[in-house]
Amino acid sequence: MTHVGILGGGQLARMMALAAVPMGIKVTVLDPNEDACAGVVADHIHAEYDDADALSKLASLSDVVTFEFENVPSEVAHALSDRCQVFPPPEALAVAQDRIKEKSLFCELGIPVSPFKPVESREDLDKGVAEIGLPCVLKTSRDGYDGKGQAVLKTDQDVEVAWMELGGRPLILEDFVEFKREVSVIAVRSQSGEIKAYALTENQHRKGMLAISMAPAKVSETSSEAHQYAARLLNHFNYVGVLAVEFFETDKGLLVNEMAPRVHNSGHWTQDGAEVCQFENHIRAILGWPLGETRSRGMTSMVNWIGVMPKPQHLLSIESLHWHDYGKAPRAGRKIGHVNLCAADLPALQQKLMVVGRVLSKQLEDGLDAFDV
Amino acid sequence: MTHVGILGGGQLARMMALAAVPMGIKVTVLDPNEDACAGVVADHIHAEYDDADALSKLASLSDVVTFEFENVPSEVAHALSDRCQVFPPPEALAVAQDRIKEKSLFCELGIPVSPFKPVESREDLDKGVAEIGLPCVLKTSRDGYDGKGQAVLKTDQDVEVAWMELGGRPLILEDFVEFKREVSVIAVRSQSGEIKAYALTENQHRKGMLAISMAPAKVSETSSEAHQYAARLLNHFNYVGVLAVEFFETDKGLLVNEMAPRVHNSGHWTQDGAEVCQFENHIRAILGWPLGETRSRGMTSMVNWIGVMPKPQHLLSIESLHWHDYGKAPRAGRKIGHVNLCAADLPALQQKLMVVGRVLSKQLEDGLDAFDV
Repeated sequence: MTHVGILGGGQLARMMALAAVPMGIKVTVLDPNEDACAGVVADHIHAEYDDADALSKLASLSDVVTFEFENVPSEVAHALSDRCQVFPPPEALAVAQDRIKEKSLFCELGIPVSPFKPVESREDLDKGVAEIGLPCVLKTSRDGYDGKGQAVLKTDQDVEVAWMELGGRPLILEDFVEFKREVSVIAVRSQSGEIKAYALTENQHRKGMLAISMAPAKVSETSSEAHQYAARLLNHFNYVGVLAVEFFETDKGLLVNEMAPRVHNSGHWTQDGAEVCQFENHIRAILGWPLGETRSRGMTSMVNWIGVMPKPQHLLSIESLHWHDYGKAPRAGRKIGHVNLCAADLPALQQKLMVVGRVLSKQLEDGLDAFDV
Repeated sequence: MTHVGILGGGQLARMMALAAVPMGIKVTVLDPNEDACAGVVADHIHAEYDDADALSKLASLSDVVTFEFENVPSEVAHALSDRCQVFPPPEALAVAQDRIKEKSLFCELGIPVSPFKPVESREDLDKGVAEIGLPCVLKTSRDGYDGKGQAVLKTDQDVEVAWMELGGRPLILEDFVEFKREVSVIAVRSQSGEIKAYALTENQHRKGMLAISMAPAKVSETSSEAHQYAARLLNHFNYVGVLAVEFFETDKGLLVNEMAPRVHNSGHWTQDGAEVCQFENHIRAILGWPLGETRSRGMTSMVNWIGVMPKPQHLLSIESLHWHDYGKAPRAGRKIGHVNLCAADLPALQQKLMVVGRVLSKQLEDGLDAFDV
């Protein structure tokens, strides 16, 4: 039986396993968390990511190993790739882990980026602020996600505070981008080099986390190049699997924000809104199988549940609403599920989003406590 | 966490679990088979169906218990229903287990059946044959499935042979129905009495097993009543969950064949060809949740893999082909997987079926052995 190993056993691994099992594939996840939510649909090796024995076991079981997050230590990915196939390529991981390397690659490949400066000292920071101008954003070059490890600098005082908080690590100073909207491309490349991409997705973030995405996004003059840029990245890495690329759309055109070498939250709508979803296509790609159709079915909006899950029975009466509960314990600021709302067109979709909003606020009015909503 | 128990851990339980897990539901199956294929996506109580301790454990874990086959001993279903909710209602099980009771109920409810006679002795059999006339079909009243436990009687000699084989058990003699086609209705009833049904499905059997189904079937003048008959049965039992009803379409109109009080092979196309599939709707119904849309998406054909699985990589390049491997060991005459082929219309669907046929015959020509195809 074909066997896929996954580093990480959270919701992305869980949804990959849910797509893999019907294709007759056995899945094993490696995750240090005892309650890893992928464990209900996959075998679970309960170990740290640097546990040599556990990694060796995963490699020996698996035809191919993939990962659900980009902060896999690159030495781990390399060690695994000596023993079994590892996709996406560890090189893409290494670049995605380091904002400086990542932005530099975007420049090399002619993908528009906002001005940025590596910052290694307080002096670098002051020079960078002078050059780029306020407002700007200071970020850790590594280990940032979901808005963590970054600070917006609007005043000289902000510069001081941000340095106190973030200084001492490799940092990157970026221009503060005034954008009209955020869009992303989810694309997939097969072992034979075939590339398919899903419709452009429009994303709304709240507190640094993805809150709502909608696809197909209206394609503007400037956003139409997003797919080409994604293809350029895929071919550069001789990439295999799903890659997500996030962009800002500004008055001056498209600016790339970052890439994620894995299945991505902004592609969750494909589970119910596309012919074959990102999870199945990632699995097909890493196994060397033909890719599935990425064509959209009507319009779809994904709404993340962050912190708490509403009760499914209150929302399932909304037509074409599809439920995705990750089986995780509720906790403030934690992504624990999402719904996909499907509709024939934008007005119908907006109508449904409003119904979801009404049901949620009704539950709040009814005095259900936070963990009940 | 909401918890569903299932008697039986085969492919139907597996597909129910695959639909339940994304809704945040925990699933436990009870199955005497160590390799029960639902075990990879559900907890598995490894015990016989009459193991009182195991049943008690299942009942105490579960908010509701359901089953994937109709031959659950009715005393087991009743014992469980004293301890927890059991859906569909055990009464529907008891009727479906006994062809004589089943046909009698169809008569009561005004659902057209072909002539039949209970047979308890050789004398009954001779009388029945004289009354119904040859050809006719002798079946065990209980425990028959997939064409097993039945014999077609064309000559007096067949009568003798069939009696030798089947005599001594409660039997039923039925008219041999010359039908134009076989159709089925998959319908679902909620705890509040709401009924939804999927499009009429046309089925082709081979050696007594479902080989191909297609939906929506062309609705003829005579088949249009199939949905009404299904609704009559659902309301009769105050039914909760998915019910399948199979019909023969004849020159003289529709004749009911049998009902199955569970998710059904002829509804597998709904996984990729309907808004919400039969498995999710069964789970929603038994939990008292609102039913999902049963509307079709274009046309879908389901092709069963019996005995052996083809290689997915050879077929996945066919557009809108969806793979369902049950993870079961290959064995002659065993259902081990299916594909759903989706298309916008009938000509496109037929085209795809031909491509599937060509790929399969090409593999045979290439000399791959039976278990490789």
